Amino acid sequence: MQLAILGGTGALGGGLTLRFAHDTEHQLSVGSRDPERATEAAAAYRETLDDRGVEARIESGGNADVAAGADVVVAAVPATYVASTIESVADRIRDDAIIVSPANGIDAHADGFAAVTPDAGSLTAVAANAAPASNPVVGAFHTLAAGRLSNLEAELGIDTLVVGDDAGARERLCDLAEEIDGLRAIDAGPIANAHEVESLTALQLTLMRQNPSLEDVGVRFR
Amino acid sequence: MQLAILGGTGALGGGLTLRFAHDTEHQLSVGSRDPERATEAAAAYRETLDDRGVEARIESGGNADVAAGADVVVAAVPATYVASTIESVADRIRDDAIIVSPANGIDAHADGFAAVTPDAGSLTAVAANAAPASNPVVGAFHTLAAGRLSNLEAELGIDTLVVGDDAGARERLCDLAEEIDGLRAIDAGPIANAHEVESLTALQLTLMRQNPSLEDVGVRFR
Repeated sequence: MQLAILGGTGALGGGLTLRFAHDTEHQLSVGSRDPERATEAAAAYRETLDDRGVEARIESGGNADVAAGADVVVAAVPATYVASTIESVADRIRDDAIIVSPANGIDAHADGFAAVTPDAGSLTAVAANAAPASNPVVGAFHTLAAGRLSNLEAELGIDTLVVGDDAGARERLCDLAEEIDGLRAIDAGPIANAHEVESLTALQLTLMRQNPSLEDVGVRFR
Repeated sequence: MQLAILGGTGALGGGLTLRFAHDTEHQLSVGSRDPERATEAAAAYRETLDDRGVEARIESGGNADVAAGADVVVAAVPATYVASTIESVADRIRDDAIIVSPANGIDAHADGFAAVTPDAGSLTAVAANAAPASNPVVGAFHTLAAGRLSNLEAELGIDTLVVGDDAGARERLCDLAEEIDGLRAIDAGPIANAHEVESLTALQLTLMRQNPSLEDVGVRFR
């Protein structure tokens, strides 16, 4: 399978790239608005993997170039860039590519972090509105701390919640996510449920702020 | 310590009563708007505990009667009764009693469950607005499935999040909650963070609905 990680130079994009390259045989492509930065990031990821004896072929390029031909396109970008990033690759992606949004809307306040609700109801809905009608859009990977993903020594033993209106796409994404060692994917149903899924990240940040012992904390439903 | 469980005839109130009676030495009182129902429930809980060789003294009575003198007053009532229940006991409780709200605002929709935001921002805030100014109000126990609490054979191994504006009261409540075997309490900070805490329950219900294998699911941050 071919996975394009748009915003792959960022912390979450980098963590996902490293884990997928380390744990699976899928072909990875790191995208950025600036192709040079993507190339630098891909080289750094290859070096990290090489240090662990994993020889990974990680392609790189502009977001639209890496999205073209991918089976799964992850928009690993901040909330404000979800729509524009997807729109910028829309006419290049395959009709059946699954678009994945891991974005969370978060506002810091004096005492912690609050989940922000976009007018569309959720960022997964924002992504779905920006995507071509033929492409299934799925929200996933929201609750994964980038630092923990990027540290390949760190065990996961945590969950990711997968939300989207196309049940088949959710199932494919769950299967893909579970190829990362120690990650369990849970089907969270249609996009109507996405806001509650996305809100969990603000809560995780609040708990880490209140409790320094909870570093890079994830969540497991049990 | 004396614990009053208002709405102690309900599923969550019953589960909390059973667990505290089973795992701690605290004095428990089960309250209800109807004292007779409270007395019946207390007898049933004593019988359940007796079957497991635990002799528990569980008092019962009207909500205001059991709340009087308690160190901790848990308003284990549905969202719509949080304010009226606290108001109904306000002039009977001790000045320093900690009032605990485990309530969640939840709306069922076609595809799952949504968290409802009251005008006050959260149900913990609703509880705080209804409580006498001298009484610290804490939100806790939201994410615990009543059926799992009530089944004393069921292992917990899960978390409860504790939110409130009085840091000392949060700490006392965390200590109390952790006297339940297998329950870890996490400080979630001031009431400004309560809505995200309370929202988690809607998400748990959605995940259980989508995944029948997740029965009475709890949550652990790890």
